[in-house]
Amino acid sequence: MRDALVSAAFRLFLERGYEQTTVDDIVTLAGVGRRSFFRYFPSKEDVVFPDHERCLADMTEFLAASGDSDEPVRRVCDAARLVLRMYAENPSFSVQRYRLTKQVPGLRAYELSVVWRYERALAEYLRVRFAGRADGSLRADVIASAVVAAHNNALRSWLRSDGQGDASATVDHALGYVQSAFGGEPAAPAEPSAAADGPAGAGDAEDVVVVVSRRGAPLWRVVQEIETAFARD
Amino acid sequence: MRDALVSAAFRLFLERGYEQTTVDDIVTLAGVGRRSFFRYFPSKEDVVFPDHERCLADMTEFLAASGDSDEPVRRVCDAARLVLRMYAENPSFSVQRYRLTKQVPGLRAYELSVVWRYERALAEYLRVRFAGRADGSLRADVIASAVVAAHNNALRSWLRSDGQGDASATVDHALGYVQSAFGGEPAAPAEPSAAADGPAGAGDAEDVVVVVSRRGAPLWRVVQEIETAFARD
Repeated sequence: MRDALVSAAFRLFLERGYEQTTVDDIVTLAGVGRRSFFRYFPSKEDVVFPDHERCLADMTEFLAASGDSDEPVRRVCDAARLVLRMYAENPSFSVQRYRLTKQVPGLRAYELSVVWRYERALAEYLRVRFAGRADGSLRADVIASAVVAAHNNALRSWLRSDGQGDASATVDHALGYVQSAFGGEPAAPAEPSAAADGPAGAGDAEDVVVVVSRRGAPLWRVVQEIETAFARD
Repeated sequence: MRDALVSAAFRLFLERGYEQTTVDDIVTLAGVGRRSFFRYFPSKEDVVFPDHERCLADMTEFLAASGDSDEPVRRVCDAARLVLRMYAENPSFSVQRYRLTKQVPGLRAYELSVVWRYERALAEYLRVRFAGRADGSLRADVIASAVVAAHNNALRSWLRSDGQGDASATVDHALGYVQSAFGGEPAAPAEPSAAADGPAGAGDAEDVVVVVSRRGAPLWRVVQEIETAFARD
């Protein structure tokens, strides 16, 4: 019944436009009563995004099941992949919705509020993991926001290509950028990455320095680089 | 007249609540006609955020006036400071609005759409600056989003403290975190920072790369570090 309502709704949205379609039109085409519609969807907008509530619940559950040994940045990246999976499960539906959302300002606003809820879920998890660390809430908010932005950049590029290509690879690449910026390790845990550790880490317990310099670089720059590498906190 | 409408509106919002106040109530208290209200504000929501359009215009102008010598990450951080300045100009009004917005879901949604417009303005600027670089649009979106998240984390903490304390210092600290993660230089412009450039930049136009590695690390790891530093795109 729920699926029937979603397909009836999308058929009408594509045929006559979102604004021109009423809930009555949808229930008539689906052959059910209005009450059935509202049992599944609080409003017409909600039928456009039928899976976000489930996905938000899955994400919250996934994050709640984390252990202390889970690297936090990697964990929120994995949580973001749950959203991608939802989109990638049904490429043609996702592409249709993407086009619809671009055309209807009310749906854009709805989508912003959904994105905000995903971002808060990631940030809340990170705030707990970073509790007691300097700037814990700042880091949590910034990293959550960066993860969502990277995910959405990759998702939109996949949607713009009509759902062609490997959505997972695109998103992995985008999330890898965030992981490398914020200290999560993008590839296998064995891969060393002092330099890719971002601002944290270098200079703590490390004592071999390799300097690669362009011929002709002034000595003060080389010295300053070395100082900078050690000073990063 | 515009200011009179804003103060009448906030007096009523605080006295009877936002939902219970109509545009008619506002214009009656301000002693003007309905048409005057709508000349300044498209809707009741807009009177809650009277300065965002001007601030968005200022931000767009500021970014458009950038030169190639402006470090892009630093430039978007400076652009974000324009938003802070708007809030800090009138602490008691900003704190009142913060409390109101927390209580009214419709205003939260409005605020999300405003934040989204700031974020897009920063991202569009960065996309132009990063054009032709690998992952230019990804970097632009992620950094814009991180800047906005850092700014808002600091702004909210200042608003929660009832506008006490030094808002600028709090925001500078938060933006410094983003600059250090994404290669903007947090301190003086003269300071080079190939290593602090994060995953981006090294090997492009940088001419000094420093790799710091743990004593006892096998040679292949050190070699891999160097390769990684140069391969980063």
